[in-house]
Amino acid sequence: MYGLIAKMTAAPGQRDALTAILLDELTGRPGCLSYIVAHDPADDNAVWVTEVWIDEATHRTSVRDPAVKAVITRCIDKMATFSDAQVTRPLGGTGL
Amino acid sequence: MYGLIAKMTAAPGQRDALTAILLDELTGRPGCLSYIVAHDPADDNAVWVTEVWIDEATHRTSVRDPAVKAVITRCIDKMATFSDAQVTRPLGGTGL
Repeated sequence: MYGLIAKMTAAPGQRDALTAILLDELTGRPGCLSYIVAHDPADDNAVWVTEVWIDEATHRTSVRDPAVKAVITRCIDKMATFSDAQVTRPLGGTGL
Repeated sequence: MYGLIAKMTAAPGQRDALTAILLDELTGRPGCLSYIVAHDPADDNAVWVTEVWIDEATHRTSVRDPAVKAVITRCIDKMATFSDAQVTRPLGGTGL
């Protein structure tokens, strides 16, 4: 499996709008086993997204999909910064 | 919901043993919606655990359970370091 842990910092006042796009338009994609959107309780602008995909190729296919690319572009428009995502190799657990 | 993102660094040669305990004995606990154990592909000793619980109280109850405490102690014995966990407030997604 292929995992990502990413921290996004929304532009001021844009966290809810960013969160809505992530939840409404980037969850439930084919081959995505887990995609959890969370706020950072200590930072009003920060959003954490943790993802698990069947494999890296499936994730790459998804983010290259023109429709997904368009959504990601709209997300980027609402962000101030996007920290480098931590790549992981999920082995198992609850919720996969 | 209540979430945690934690990085554990196993003692040299102990990552697999630590991973086995986490997967075998700390998944599927009551009130735990997601508990994913992953290796860090760039660090042979690092384990990432991302968790989502119904709420903070449920998580606190779980980690205070004597049986769970005993398992956590065995995990700590296999660790070199445990970075402060990032607390999150999950809002939704795939795999909850």
